[in-house]
Amino acid sequence: MNDVVTLAQGAGGKQTSELIERVFKAHLANPLLTEDDAAVVDVPAGRLALSTDGFIVSPAFFPGGDVGKLAVCGTVNDVACMGATPLYLTCAFQIEEGYPLAQLETIVASMAAAAREAGVSVVAGDTKVAGRGQVDGVFITTTGVGVLGRGARPRGGAARPGDAVIVTGDVGRHGCAILLSRDDFGIEADVTSDCAPLAAAIRSALDACDDIHTIRDATRGGVGTVLYEIAHQSGVGVRLDATKVPVAPEVAGVCGMLGLEPLYLACEGRLVVVCPPDAVDAVLAALRASTHAEGSCVIGSVTREDPGLVVMQTEIGTQTILPEPGNELLPRIC
Amino acid sequence: MNDVVTLAQGAGGKQTSELIERVFKAHLANPLLTEDDAAVVDVPAGRLALSTDGFIVSPAFFPGGDVGKLAVCGTVNDVACMGATPLYLTCAFQIEEGYPLAQLETIVASMAAAAREAGVSVVAGDTKVAGRGQVDGVFITTTGVGVLGRGARPRGGAARPGDAVIVTGDVGRHGCAILLSRDDFGIEADVTSDCAPLAAAIRSALDACDDIHTIRDATRGGVGTVLYEIAHQSGVGVRLDATKVPVAPEVAGVCGMLGLEPLYLACEGRLVVVCPPDAVDAVLAALRASTHAEGSCVIGSVTREDPGLVVMQTEIGTQTILPEPGNELLPRIC
Repeated sequence: MNDVVTLAQGAGGKQTSELIERVFKAHLANPLLTEDDAAVVDVPAGRLALSTDGFIVSPAFFPGGDVGKLAVCGTVNDVACMGATPLYLTCAFQIEEGYPLAQLETIVASMAAAAREAGVSVVAGDTKVAGRGQVDGVFITTTGVGVLGRGARPRGGAARPGDAVIVTGDVGRHGCAILLSRDDFGIEADVTSDCAPLAAAIRSALDACDDIHTIRDATRGGVGTVLYEIAHQSGVGVRLDATKVPVAPEVAGVCGMLGLEPLYLACEGRLVVVCPPDAVDAVLAALRASTHAEGSCVIGSVTREDPGLVVMQTEIGTQTILPEPGNELLPRIC
Repeated sequence: MNDVVTLAQGAGGKQTSELIERVFKAHLANPLLTEDDAAVVDVPAGRLALSTDGFIVSPAFFPGGDVGKLAVCGTVNDVACMGATPLYLTCAFQIEEGYPLAQLETIVASMAAAAREAGVSVVAGDTKVAGRGQVDGVFITTTGVGVLGRGARPRGGAARPGDAVIVTGDVGRHGCAILLSRDDFGIEADVTSDCAPLAAAIRSALDACDDIHTIRDATRGGVGTVLYEIAHQSGVGVRLDATKVPVAPEVAGVCGMLGLEPLYLACEGRLVVVCPPDAVDAVLAALRASTHAEGSCVIGSVTREDPGLVVMQTEIGTQTILPEPGNELLPRIC
């Protein structure tokens, strides 16, 4: 086989089968991975959560992960945020002709590692090869299926005045790591993406409190965008204590130099959790005992006042409105 | 709103919400379409079929359809071919900055029409906008979920010697239509793609015979590639009667001029159905009574001899081996 991906490998014939065997099956094989056009999986009666997400990130490799890890974590986290247990994943690849096979293998291997950690099986896939210039490197679209239990069903529209707003770690790492990897600014800083599967942390939180109102993973729009979504969907205000929003010193430094708001930098391993005030201690304890959520803390509360707005209480006690997410975010992380 | 897609519309903020409202929700809205990161759907206990497929077709509009119709039909057909009833679809869009909004709307409207015909609901979606030159126009990845009943479970590895091989209409239309749309050859011919949702035809066939061994939809590799897959997966030979393979005169004409094998031209609305000989009449009757399968006919049989090969009986009585699909197919249809 060549050491780069060829158009013939996307044509559906013998070379496609070879690529699937050597790269995809070698890493993702499991008893459910299908040889037919669809996988067959067992589910209990009830409700499923379904989520899909496309991943185009440049560069494809960054400190703390790559597009493969991102594609698994992003979808697993979306399913888990609904209160579901993620079980199955499908993945579709669109690969540029000439893409190095060794890099593709690294990406697939890190998908496999992330899927193992998240407890999901990749059951079906698709590979297309596009001509040079038709796609930029590798795009991955994953779709996740999870099973919903009978417990809480957290959603964006369920936040209530008085609720506590928790974030599960320091914000803006992923966006900052990507920005530095692009090397457009000549800034040297040691920032690792927070990209991680959060299903176990979410499960722990739900086990600690069956009345969590909202769980959202902050992705391309950062924690700020999630807070605005919750404010709009629930018709409430969000009051943030700016001094309590955890930002790593190196991220804060980069944001300072470039004039960026860390609340709008992408995360890929951070949750916003909204729960009743009397459940905060239990939820915080459960999150802090979970991998990838050790840094959980309360950053604010839900208010009846200022519906649809996120208001920041600053260090010197003044209140400002966090600007609503609008135009293209910098850096653009898809 | 602008009349082209902007990077800001892919950034996850306010403009993204506007794009989703105006284009996606306007056409695809249904009670299950989620505002959260994942959709919640009901399923009965049992087995699900899951399939994913990415669609990059150039040109995006062709006689008989567009990439939106294709993206729905392709995945619905894959799920239905497993014997499942397709219920839910997710779709992820990767759109090039500057893509005309009017064209995007046409694509989404034709997805909605195809979904209605196929009886599926689009329950979750994702929109990413890539910079100019990062993607070529619009890519769509769909994932389908279907429910399997307790009846037959057709699969590629279940063909048996003596079985009849049915095709549900004339072959090669889609590939030929795309090729002519590209206008690389200066050939004028009136060929319409066969792109169609086949779930109802498949359901009729399965109702007529609960022991259908294999159902596959012929896509990018054409009917020839499907026959080779069945030959390999079932460890059998396939004997084709070349005179019985239906090819529209205009498709045959184009193939003759360009030296193409119609069995290797893409289809997007044709099935290969393999069933026991005593069920042929019932299966054919059911298919012929179904929309999009009126032209169903037997084109050959499964043999114990020549395992792994597709042998063609030609008009003058000689036998030749259909060349195995291998290198890049012409025209390349993803």
